[in-house]
Amino acid sequence: MPVAVPAPTPQPGDAVGDGSAVATSVRPPAIDVDRLLGRLDALGRIGDTGDGGCCRLALSDADAAGRAHVGGLLRDLGLRVASDGLGNTVAVRPGREDGPPVLIGSHIDTVRTGGRYDGNLGVLAGVEVLTALEESGTTTRRPVGVAFFTNEEGARFAPDMMGSLVFVGGMDLDQARSVQGIDGPTVGQELDRLGLGGDAPVPFPAPRAFLELHIEQGPVLEGLGVQIGAVTGTQAISWQELVFHGVSNHAGTTPMAMRRDAAYAAAELTTFVRRLALELGGHQVGTVGSSDLYPNLVNVVAGRAACRVDLRNTDDDVLAEAEGRLVAFVAELCRAEGVTVAARTLARFDAVSFDPAVVDLVEATAVRCGYSCARLPSGAGHDAQMLARVCPAGMIFVPSSGGISHNPAEHTDPALLGAGADVLLHAVLDLAG
Amino acid sequence: MPVAVPAPTPQPGDAVGDGSAVATSVRPPAIDVDRLLGRLDALGRIGDTGDGGCCRLALSDADAAGRAHVGGLLRDLGLRVASDGLGNTVAVRPGREDGPPVLIGSHIDTVRTGGRYDGNLGVLAGVEVLTALEESGTTTRRPVGVAFFTNEEGARFAPDMMGSLVFVGGMDLDQARSVQGIDGPTVGQELDRLGLGGDAPVPFPAPRAFLELHIEQGPVLEGLGVQIGAVTGTQAISWQELVFHGVSNHAGTTPMAMRRDAAYAAAELTTFVRRLALELGGHQVGTVGSSDLYPNLVNVVAGRAACRVDLRNTDDDVLAEAEGRLVAFVAELCRAEGVTVAARTLARFDAVSFDPAVVDLVEATAVRCGYSCARLPSGAGHDAQMLARVCPAGMIFVPSSGGISHNPAEHTDPALLGAGADVLLHAVLDLAG
Repeated sequence: MPVAVPAPTPQPGDAVGDGSAVATSVRPPAIDVDRLLGRLDALGRIGDTGDGGCCRLALSDADAAGRAHVGGLLRDLGLRVASDGLGNTVAVRPGREDGPPVLIGSHIDTVRTGGRYDGNLGVLAGVEVLTALEESGTTTRRPVGVAFFTNEEGARFAPDMMGSLVFVGGMDLDQARSVQGIDGPTVGQELDRLGLGGDAPVPFPAPRAFLELHIEQGPVLEGLGVQIGAVTGTQAISWQELVFHGVSNHAGTTPMAMRRDAAYAAAELTTFVRRLALELGGHQVGTVGSSDLYPNLVNVVAGRAACRVDLRNTDDDVLAEAEGRLVAFVAELCRAEGVTVAARTLARFDAVSFDPAVVDLVEATAVRCGYSCARLPSGAGHDAQMLARVCPAGMIFVPSSGGISHNPAEHTDPALLGAGADVLLHAVLDLAG
Repeated sequence: MPVAVPAPTPQPGDAVGDGSAVATSVRPPAIDVDRLLGRLDALGRIGDTGDGGCCRLALSDADAAGRAHVGGLLRDLGLRVASDGLGNTVAVRPGREDGPPVLIGSHIDTVRTGGRYDGNLGVLAGVEVLTALEESGTTTRRPVGVAFFTNEEGARFAPDMMGSLVFVGGMDLDQARSVQGIDGPTVGQELDRLGLGGDAPVPFPAPRAFLELHIEQGPVLEGLGVQIGAVTGTQAISWQELVFHGVSNHAGTTPMAMRRDAAYAAAELTTFVRRLALELGGHQVGTVGSSDLYPNLVNVVAGRAACRVDLRNTDDDVLAEAEGRLVAFVAELCRAEGVTVAARTLARFDAVSFDPAVVDLVEATAVRCGYSCARLPSGAGHDAQMLARVCPAGMIFVPSSGGISHNPAEHTDPALLGAGADVLLHAVLDLAG
């Protein structure tokens, strides 16, 4: 589907014509930064961890409370809020013409040690765009919608970006509902318990275009001293779970040479993943951030260790090489330690390049709005990469202080949050006409 | 306190004199192996894990049920069962003379993946000895008691051997009661909840002597093809908890060079402990069997990792060297990874040599009863090493199939269980006169 040709972005104070290709306004729509900050604060209080952070794991009680809160903001704009069978939620503000909306979206689930901006910014900036359109009396040519997608983080249910993947038809609804979480219940059980599933179509009809504002979650923009990032694409992601099975035994009486130690295998895996990423260099990253030992007691050689490996690269071929080297290492490790391994893929997504016209539009809009801008790939996965399967999609990044994310200390300067929302508003006006 | 001089061990069929130094019997007391096996089976059903194993963590509901069961067996012998403020439980069968008893004891708590013999054998063999004395109408010169000590394993509350340590005055009752378990409640809270504390004196008056029958939990006796082990002493034990604090961050966006990864530090520690044990060789063992990551999610660089290190050696000096090398390694690791560490000692016990006269008695009794016997040190810690602080103490080992323990597959041939109980009976008759 072709992207709308970028038109000159309306500037505050510009007279906005009433032609068929541009929005009609009583006065130019503008972002209210204080309102946006207030809404970020209010949403951040739902699942507040008391240390500046937020814990709203997907389909938890806190997530349901956050959804109700954001749904209320959209209803307050007079919009109908619809959810599909996975809890993906969309509200569309009509345009002068029917047809697919320009969709703004992100997610409101967090990791366990989440901050207040990851995902939330993109959703609440979308609400702010719709609010600015409403209060300025702006009517766009095309409908403009806001969406939040279920379980983007994947911290409780794998894969990540599950909601947007189902939204675009990349995963069956039934398959997604059957995924079991790290704490027991399935996606479907939690959706039913919380009453979150609706009857919006799955997959959803393709939007006209998709835009997502997000914090960078890395150090690049801050290092460059740049205000806005025009995101060129997302990394390829490989998540694997490796469960080592050894023999639990007495830590005091079992000679070192007779051990079949699953915890030791897990540790060797963890240090290998670090070496692998450093050896491959470039954009390769590798992490073992999750590992569970059993019986996990000080005086027992572990009989079982379940590790989750996160490998990412902007280059699909190098990521495939990393996966191959991991397999070879694990085979040799198992042989040497006398343990066995069961492996399964938790998530595997190829690298995505965003539509060049959308990347150009983000960059041009940022510059026209008076912000410094740089192009960069995303280190993280985002819902926009799923939407890119069905429509022109792109992302706007704002800098993360210290590059910190998935951490209560996650922070972005309020002026930069406002700048990001401003670019989002004007890029949407361009796309929606 | 001097150990009784070994007297000729009564043999089945021997006439037993009625002198002041030896037991008087209607007929010679003898172990009933089937009864012992039946009692092991009955106790093993309490906390049965369905895979041949047993889970009765100290001061759990299952532990309380096991205590009630064993207390019932002792009461069935007409004995008064007394507990101290930590739940250490003793029943004493009177002798012709008053004075401290010859005490038989061990523990009935297990690790989470425990077998059916570790600890249980020593306690139930003690019950079997008292039963054999009772049904043979034997009166010993000195009292003979059976004890089971609280929280020998240390799997839920550190340190291990807590009960016997308090029993001999090596730890204050209040200090022990204040220890918090891995699942939250303190020792005292669980004792109160389960109603297990009694008014027996703390510390307990020193016994005349102490004997503990136990499975070896290692491969030595089986490797030698020997039926009975005369245990010369126990290893020095060092348990430390190391909590690494790094920075939780996004696994996809955080460049490898900017990571302060607590999970990586934990993995490096784990592989170091293996190398350390191999380099020091001899009787040095080292294990990291317990590690908890936080937030423990696939896509988050871990901000915290809590690891427990188990180091043991029969040689106090070499163990101290191992501890020193660990400290130096961790300091360098923290510097290199940019993490900090908080360390605390969970348990630290010097090596113990059992009373040579008791070791001689065990060996001589085994040989006189017709069993092959070897001397060996224990790889595990045992209650007997605490009792050795206050009285002549020793241990009898029987082989462990495959050297496996702390595992549902823990097994010892029934004939060998009977042989161990037989040696225990006759060594006790010797000590009790």
